[in-house]
Amino acid sequence: MDNRPIGIFDSGVGGLTVVKQVVKLLPEESLVYFGDTARVPYGSKGKETVTKFSSQIIRFLKTKNVKAVVIACNTVSSNCYEELSEEFPDLPITEVVTPGVESCIAATKNKIVGLIGTYATVSSGAYEKRLKAADPEIQVYKKACPLFVPLAEEGWVNNDVAELTARKYLQELIDKNIDSIILGCTHYPTLKECIGRIVGEKVTIVDPAKATAVKLKEYLEEHNMLSEKGHNAERLFYVSDKSHFEQICSRILHENYSAEKIDIEKY
Amino acid sequence: MDNRPIGIFDSGVGGLTVVKQVVKLLPEESLVYFGDTARVPYGSKGKETVTKFSSQIIRFLKTKNVKAVVIACNTVSSNCYEELSEEFPDLPITEVVTPGVESCIAATKNKIVGLIGTYATVSSGAYEKRLKAADPEIQVYKKACPLFVPLAEEGWVNNDVAELTARKYLQELIDKNIDSIILGCTHYPTLKECIGRIVGEKVTIVDPAKATAVKLKEYLEEHNMLSEKGHNAERLFYVSDKSHFEQICSRILHENYSAEKIDIEKY
Repeated sequence: MDNRPIGIFDSGVGGLTVVKQVVKLLPEESLVYFGDTARVPYGSKGKETVTKFSSQIIRFLKTKNVKAVVIACNTVSSNCYEELSEEFPDLPITEVVTPGVESCIAATKNKIVGLIGTYATVSSGAYEKRLKAADPEIQVYKKACPLFVPLAEEGWVNNDVAELTARKYLQELIDKNIDSIILGCTHYPTLKECIGRIVGEKVTIVDPAKATAVKLKEYLEEHNMLSEKGHNAERLFYVSDKSHFEQICSRILHENYSAEKIDIEKY
Repeated sequence: MDNRPIGIFDSGVGGLTVVKQVVKLLPEESLVYFGDTARVPYGSKGKETVTKFSSQIIRFLKTKNVKAVVIACNTVSSNCYEELSEEFPDLPITEVVTPGVESCIAATKNKIVGLIGTYATVSSGAYEKRLKAADPEIQVYKKACPLFVPLAEEGWVNNDVAELTARKYLQELIDKNIDSIILGCTHYPTLKECIGRIVGEKVTIVDPAKATAVKLKEYLEEHNMLSEKGHNAERLFYVSDKSHFEQICSRILHENYSAEKIDIEKY
């Protein structure tokens, strides 16, 4: 048994969709969340920059005595997982790509799948490589959808602009006859309804957040690292810029938390 | 006469629209540009964060021996000009709000004007305060348009999504009978054509970049700080993340420059 907290981080507030799934599945685990709201977004930036930012964040989470870290951010998971695992060999790190790939493999029947995410996630090839490794017959069609994050942050998730934008991005995937689509960015679940209307009900929408929480639970069980039964979970939230956190947090988690501001560049 | 370079900075690449005007008006001046592409955008972040980032950038520009600094970014100009002037009392600092206000005052006939920009720029009240100080009868209607920056960066400046988005943001300003509109963000000039179609030809579009270059020239003349006639201008570009700089730079400046990456957090 291990009552220390789990660290979860993201480029911003999108990773709260992962927190939501972890809380649902592991309600007795203490959590330390960090959202890099001063430097968000990561998805249009280079690998070197994103790796450096992520290292700083994990060094900060280590000061909070975390027993494991979850990379909620798809851009970091796709581009920097190996570098971070090497830099922090003693810390179990869970990322979102592998669980997303496993869910997608379970969902697809015609083996034609779509992947949407940031430029950095899509161009990294990380999802594609692992999908093909799991099933060499899989065909992957991918599309970067950089406007989805600002649409989600503007709260325009179900209006005509969102629908027109989704149609523009997704039509070429629909034309390839995909039967499932991976939401390869933590912000995209908030646009799920709109995306669902465009791709149609025959296409399964795969949200890696759920599968990531399952993967984390399995790891902790296997390594006897779960918190004790009845452990009073503490959930702490940290950001690098305070604007809008409370508002978006209550929208995603349906609970009110406040966040403490951290000078992440010092780590 | 002073042959030292002028420093120009922005949260990202948008400030190149200001560089373009400065090059046009002051072709013999050497320039050092810094774009904070690793931490862009600033417009959704808090004043404390943006002031800290801007201080780091001016400290970096000082290592390049600049004789003056131009804040190309509206968010920084609106929120942090006083703090930065206090922190760097010996450095002449030009910002974009005052020139934008003067152009707008010259343009409006019915004294009903619109202001568009990031959340941080619009909510700072900086433009409004200076417009009212220049003419107490002026009525200002303002609107944050956070989707314009990602649209500009996606290159969607003239399609149906851009038009629908512009209509959604601008209709309430049009309904107020504005006769001029200030583009309070360096990215917006790339959407000028689309914005013009929505607001109609009777509305004057005010781009503070041009007036800022004029203001800078006047300051240098008055203080005898222009470079010598025939001075061979050198233009250097620095960024905090290299992705996409060259591409966007050639789109805005119609010249090919490469940028050197700087670890700005060290300054």
